Order: sequence, then structure tokens, then C-alpha cells
Amino acid sequence: MAELNNILAANKEYSGGFKHGTLAIPPSRKLAVLACMDARLTVEDFLGLGTGDAHIIRNAGGIATDDAIRSLIISHELLGTQEFLVVNHTDCGMLTFTDEELQKKLTQKYKADASGLKFHSFPNLEQNVRNQVDKIKSTPFLPKDIPVYGFTYDVRTGKLGRVI
Amino acid sequence: MAELNNILAANKEYSGGFKHGTLAIPPSRKLAVLACMDARLTVEDFLGLGTGDAHIIRNAGGIATDDAIRSLIISHELLGTQEFLVVNHTDCGMLTFTDEELQKKLTQKYKADASGLKFHSFPNLEQNVRNQVDKIKSTPFLPKDIPVYGFTYDVRTGKLGRVI
Repeated sequence: MAELNNILAANKEYSGGFKHGTLAIPPSRKLAVLACMDARLTVEDFLGLGTGDAHIIRNAGGIATDDAIRSLIISHELLGTQEFLVVNHTDCGMLTFTDEELQKKLTQKYKADASGLKFHSFPNLEQNVRNQVDKIKSTPFLPKDIPVYGFTYDVRTGKLGRVI
Repeated sequence: MAELNNILAANKEYSGGFKHGTLAIPPSRKLAVLACMDARLTVEDFLGLGTGDAHIIRNAGGIATDDAIRSLIISHELLGTQEFLVVNHTDCGMLTFTDEELQKKLTQKYKADASGLKFHSFPNLEQNVRNQVDKIKSTPFLPKDIPVYGFTYDVRTGKLGRVI
């Protein structure tokens, strides 16, 4: 419980000065972001997004998995977002291993077969961004003309770089 | 491109005063959070998390999908997180529809069969939190004794409520 009490104390302070209690469900800037879970990415901060502005979808790598696509479909179809942004980043953990290596490690550690698990590690950052944008654009249940921008985020400088 | 220029301008300002360029990959507070993508949840703010502190995984609902589990395995196994926090929230869009309704809507709109898509809508908030915690705890490739806390977040008050 190392962090639990710290979190509860922080939330008490946050809710004490809470000013966002009347926001509607749909994101006010009609934007959905898909980014990596990395701790160094405070997505709202580096994109200038406030509370209520945008859907933020995050997973290991910022990958357009079936689950991320599920979230984007709900975002657009039920909550009206009209632009999507994909952000992968430099020095990503996903550049440092292969799926096969992690599968073997887990199989040995937990004495259970992990060979079927897909982790979506990738060897090239910019190509990975392009692949995720392509995957979103090829989804049959999103409009063909919805803008999908692809960016890298540099964890050393805080700067976005446009890929697509 | 309604929001693209706004985002680029905001990032220019953010990176101009960037102070986080030397952070290491592993989250400093050894914490991973699974929360909903909802625009009203600025997760880092209401949990008191700074840049570099924690992995933040987000999808529609804050569901422990296979993809969220993938991210948690990478988070723990490769980057050393030791506590997990699940946060679902009041007034969630996922409480307002059924998977079947959305499947039908998409099938009609896109003239393609959406009946196989699982959206993870849910009828009961607190039960849904329990279900996600149970799913994480039953994953074969995470330690059985890793703490997994389950919370609701009240979008009207900014307060966390402990479920499990």
C-alpha cells in the first residue's frame, strides 16, 4: 500500500477545489488521442488539453489494438469526436524487447504457456506511428474521411514531431 | 484540422519550458493506473501524479481487456510497477447503451457486420470495478499478490470512492 494513502490525500486536496462538476460527457474539442502509457508522457499537458476537452486512450506503445479501435468507435459514434491523434514517443520501452523474448520470460517465470500473447513491441518508431494510423484508417466502422494525425513525442525535449 | 494548429501551438509553449528531459523509463512511484478515456477525467490531476510517476492505461470504460492486461504485464514485468489502480467513474457513457444496440447501429450505418464486436458496456458501476479487479487478479502472468485497488471517481465532485 505504498502509494494508496498518498493518492487518497492528493484526491482529497483535488476534490476540495473541484471546478469541473458540470461538464457534459462529449469531449468539448471533439478530439480523441491514442498515446503510450509511458510515465513520462503527461498527454494533456504536452497537447494543451484541459479537463473535458478530449478522450485520452493509452496503452503500452500507443498501439491501435482492437481495444483501442473499440474505444475510438465509441468515441466517434456515441460521443461525437471528429479528429484522432496518434502519439508514440522516443525511448519507448516497446523498442527494447521482442515479443518472443517476453513470451519466453513469462513462460519460465509463471510455468504457463505465454507463447500466444502478443505484446506489440516494435523496432522503428516512425514506421510504428504510420502503421497505427493505417490501422485506424482501415477500420470498417469509422468514417473513411476522419482525420488521423500521427506524431512522435520526444521525451528529452517535450516536442511533437509530425509523422503523417 | 480544427484542433491540429491549437495542439501544435500548445506543444511549442510546453516544450519551451520543458523540465522533464532526464527522467528514466520506469515509473518513479512504481504504480500503474487503468482508467476510462472520458474527457472529464484528468487522471494525473485527481490522483496527484506528476510526469514520470506512473503508467496510465486508458480505454473506453476503464476495462481490463486483454489489451489492458498486456499493458499491465509489460508495466510490471519490464518496468517494475508494484501496485495497480482501477478507476471507473459516475455518468460513464458505457452505462448508457448495450453492445447489441451499438452493433446494430454500426451494421446499418457502415453496411458491414458489426455483430462480432465487443464494446464492454456495463449496467452497474461498482460491480464493473469489481469485475475488472477480479480479471486482473486472475491473470496467469502477473504475481498473485500484487495489490489491485478498485475505485469509482465522481465526475460531479472530483472524489474517489473505494470499491475494493
